[in-house]
Amino acid sequence: MKLIFLGTGAGRPTLRRNVTSIALLLPQAGGRFWLFDAGEGTQHQLQRAKLKLSRLDRIFITHLHGDHLYGLPGLISSRTFHEGSGKLRLYGPPGLRGFVECALTQSELHLDYELEIHEIEPGPIALDDERFAVEAGELQHRVRVFGYRVTEAPRPGSLNSAWLAENGVEPGPLYGKLKRGEDVELPDGRKVLASEAVGPGAEGRIVTILGDTRPCEEAVRLAKNADLLVHEATFGAGMEEKAASYGHSTVLQAAETASRARARRLAVTHFSARYDDEAIDRLAADGRAIFPDILAAADFLELEIPPRPGGEGRRKAPKS
Amino acid sequence: MKLIFLGTGAGRPTLRRNVTSIALLLPQAGGRFWLFDAGEGTQHQLQRAKLKLSRLDRIFITHLHGDHLYGLPGLISSRTFHEGSGKLRLYGPPGLRGFVECALTQSELHLDYELEIHEIEPGPIALDDERFAVEAGELQHRVRVFGYRVTEAPRPGSLNSAWLAENGVEPGPLYGKLKRGEDVELPDGRKVLASEAVGPGAEGRIVTILGDTRPCEEAVRLAKNADLLVHEATFGAGMEEKAASYGHSTVLQAAETASRARARRLAVTHFSARYDDEAIDRLAADGRAIFPDILAAADFLELEIPPRPGGEGRRKAPKS
Ligand SMILES: [Zn+2]
Ligand SMILES: [Zn+2]
Repeated sequence: MKLIFLGTGAGRPTLRRNVTSIALLLPQAGGRFWLFDAGEGTQHQLQRAKLKLSRLDRIFITHLHGDHLYGLPGLISSRTFHEGSGKLRLYGPPGLRGFVECALTQSELHLDYELEIHEIEPGPIALDDERFAVEAGELQHRVRVFGYRVTEAPRPGSLNSAWLAENGVEPGPLYGKLKRGEDVELPDGRKVLASEAVGPGAEGRIVTILGDTRPCEEAVRLAKNADLLVHEATFGAGMEEKAASYGHSTVLQAAETASRARARRLAVTHFSARYDDEAIDRLAADGRAIFPDILAAADFLELEIPPRPGGEGRRKAPKS
Repeated sequence: MKLIFLGTGAGRPTLRRNVTSIALLLPQAGGRFWLFDAGEGTQHQLQRAKLKLSRLDRIFITHLHGDHLYGLPGLISSRTFHEGSGKLRLYGPPGLRGFVECALTQSELHLDYELEIHEIEPGPIALDDERFAVEAGELQHRVRVFGYRVTEAPRPGSLNSAWLAENGVEPGPLYGKLKRGEDVELPDGRKVLASEAVGPGAEGRIVTILGDTRPCEEAVRLAKNADLLVHEATFGAGMEEKAASYGHSTVLQAAETASRARARRLAVTHFSARYDDEAIDRLAADGRAIFPDILAAADFLELEIPPRPGGEGRRKAPKS
């Protein structure tokens, strides 16, 4: 699982930072990825990051401000040129459908693929994909805004084949049941507990990506125990009053949220154009006192999110 | 007068060519410029070309296809961050207002400057600027599309001061009348003809920028005697049938139009993403047999449009 920042500036693009978009590359999904927000120029950034539009199958929009939204019509249009593009699903606040349909209608665009637009409310999103769950929570900005919590399904443990052989459990359909955590009865009447026959499973990874927001309880809840929290830090430390008046956060507030949520890692982004790269490094350093594992995002920065320990994906230490 | 290509690709951006936009820098206008079309990423290209949004005061849209249009909402939004941005006027086919208002409304954008949207029909456009005239003509594409003919006002000739001194005509308000081409009567009753007292004036420059189109008579009319014709050449020679079915032109058809219009220079643009830079050079070379002064546009290519001979702007050869 990997996250790639495609735009890390607030409000308007600069030569160094495009407006907001984030790609989440999914594990074991044949190169499929999702987008969170799509500011103008997102399709250009995807090309630079060598991400193919045909592999994009869901887009989650946090809110309908232009710097998170205006790349959508162009991206939707260009995707029709990419062979093998299946259904594309959009999720976002009410108003999303009106915006997209208006843009596509005026330009008389006809798509070669199916476009589904879901105007959502806070709560779990029906994904029809058992490998991931996504929950939307409502944050606090000048317009309705969501944060998204992506949870990977837990991975089952591996079969303990030494134990199974010792106890005379033959390979067959029973193995599948055990892996799914079900206790089984052998033909000879013996009971086998899944907890004996299968090693420990692994929890799924949690990635929380928040839209523009003031500090709020819902942000903390969405980020609870997240492997990675992506939080805006439009302003630096000391600018709390200005941040509040615009419905934004400072880096200290982002760090505070990460700390209270016991997140493992915090990436701050969405920096005001007033800050150059050096100022942004200092800004992030200011957050370190509150939350040590903080980093400042930059366009095209890639973050690997390693699997949690356990499960089939675990590398076993060789027996000695 | 200078024209800068900001995007020269058709349909969708590539890493080398953005979607369509052209900047026209106006002479003696304090760095003011106009845009023709605004595909996604135009505001990014303007930054790269070091053109300030605050100096942009008119945008002419040829048609409402996304690759000519989708950069408009972001550009309009970002312009509000630029101090000293006065009124911005948009011109384009009916439907333009709906698109812009829909985009701005969904994102609850409030502008710090006045935005005027003019849905136009073919004919002269009321500009309220005596230095330029713009005429729109209707071309032939899959949707309504305009071409624009920009005509600079003629420049008056210089006063022939040697002749005036010789004939005892004193400086005063009469000079202004003569310069405007009016014949005058001196206090002593003598008549002075403007044609005697003033050197030859200069015709204004003509720049014709066409939207996507099949070859048509209106394209020839709009390009009549133009100093520069910007014409699409989505396809290379031999692709006439495909071009016709998509409402586009080949390079041969663009060259034919330039030749029939007796334009001085032809820049072809809006190349299909199937062509790389080398293929585009060959494509333009194919047009040379029909119209010698042809060139293939590229992103950030700048074309100077020199003044026509005569007028005050003329450099006089020193007398020997
Ligand atoms: Zn924002
Ligand atoms: Zn086009």
